[in-house]
Amino acid sequence: MSPYEIRKLTREGKITHQTCGMCDGYAQGNLLILPKEHAYDFLLFTQRNPKSCPILEVGDVGSRKLKKMAKDADIATDIPKYRIWEYGELKGEYTDISKFWRNDFVYFLIGCSFSFEGELLAADVPVRHIEEGKNVPMYLTDIECEPAGIFHGKLVVSMRPMPADQVIKAVSVTASMPRVHGAPIHIGDPKKIGINDINKPDFGESVTIKDGEIPVFWCCGVTPQSAVMSAKPPIAISHAPGHMFITDVKNTLLKD
Amino acid sequence: MSPYEIRKLTREGKITHQTCGMCDGYAQGNLLILPKEHAYDFLLFTQRNPKSCPILEVGDVGSRKLKKMAKDADIATDIPKYRIWEYGELKGEYTDISKFWRNDFVYFLIGCSFSFEGELLAADVPVRHIEEGKNVPMYLTDIECEPAGIFHGKLVVSMRPMPADQVIKAVSVTASMPRVHGAPIHIGDPKKIGINDINKPDFGESVTIKDGEIPVFWCCGVTPQSAVMSAKPPIAISHAPGHMFITDVKNTLLKD
Repeated sequence: MSPYEIRKLTREGKITHQTCGMCDGYAQGNLLILPKEHAYDFLLFTQRNPKSCPILEVGDVGSRKLKKMAKDADIATDIPKYRIWEYGELKGEYTDISKFWRNDFVYFLIGCSFSFEGELLAADVPVRHIEEGKNVPMYLTDIECEPAGIFHGKLVVSMRPMPADQVIKAVSVTASMPRVHGAPIHIGDPKKIGINDINKPDFGESVTIKDGEIPVFWCCGVTPQSAVMSAKPPIAISHAPGHMFITDVKNTLLKD
Repeated sequence: MSPYEIRKLTREGKITHQTCGMCDGYAQGNLLILPKEHAYDFLLFTQRNPKSCPILEVGDVGSRKLKKMAKDADIATDIPKYRIWEYGELKGEYTDISKFWRNDFVYFLIGCSFSFEGELLAADVPVRHIEEGKNVPMYLTDIECEPAGIFHGKLVVSMRPMPADQVIKAVSVTASMPRVHGAPIHIGDPKKIGINDINKPDFGESVTIKDGEIPVFWCCGVTPQSAVMSAKPPIAISHAPGHMFITDVKNTLLKD
């Protein structure tokens, strides 16, 4: 099915599950919705932290439509599952947020590592959590994001282990995709970035690291949610983890 | 002299001329200052038009200091010449804007093609306006920028003519520098982008185009000033053309 058909079924409430692996080749996006009052601070946060928050599209104030990343889409209905946050705390999950939409809301669609994983596999770089049918392991680091207004917090990273002879290829492939997190931010010793136990991720699931494999760390799209938890705005809406917005734009076109 | 020494002399009023060719190898930046009231719209304009408005740094509200691009710098004194705009009209030029600074001002430092011209020359691609000791020719196109809030307007491009066998190299060199306008947006027939007379630039000076040479067009940092003239905010401050902010960051480091 095309991204449009998937979004239509999602809008009708017929798709409510995770989107990993759906519409192969098309970019998927993380979502954050904030009132205009906090939109400047967050937009500046994304500008100052482009590797963790690469923007795909920002809506006009009050608009639920997309102009660049999808046709005939509605940001308030076309994602399988949403989360509503009040003062930094998760208040509930919904499959449709139309009834909560406000005229002062601004949506931010943010690049997702699903896009570069396809490219890694195409280059024969192993992606362990896909092999093992798990969520990617994610960790809170001790690296402070560049703050902007009310938004601040630690950088969240995702990790993919691989043989040493695959690392250069993995850097090269992802460096060419800056709009979906780009090159890794760290290779090797997890302790150097404040991760004490590589087998205990803060989000997602632990994966096997084979003898001699090197852990490779990328900036992660969960960072914006971490910044929301730190900033504690009265209201924010995000996608639920793994339940992404599927765009009409192919991953290969995110390389420019 | 180092960028710091140049900025110090500028601050003391001892340098008031254009900065082209100064501090070879260090990135220079275009400036726009707006009140917080209009900062969100402009930041979104830069996000939607990244090739014409690649952000190097955005200040905190009211702050004249830089954190990333320069140490011990003052954005209100360290540029040789500033322009003050009221309701989209040029009201005056100043070598110091300290006395006009307001606590609600936000500065935007934007990448400049001076950075990639050094790389072109290093790759033996000719840069005609440098050969002829002129300003680069710039043109208003018929391409609409993506609007954002009050900001809108036509894209401004700069043009460098070159033999056909140099074009691929020029694309390749500049594509690797997205923070200073990146790859060209058009190659060849000027009429295709609304330029009727290549010998009559709208800004800068006309340069020689030799027989068989192809004009190559890049997005230009004058686009933000064009957007200010269209949006007509009550107050805006820019650098004067050619009078740039000299950063402590080398051009080669703008490639990531």
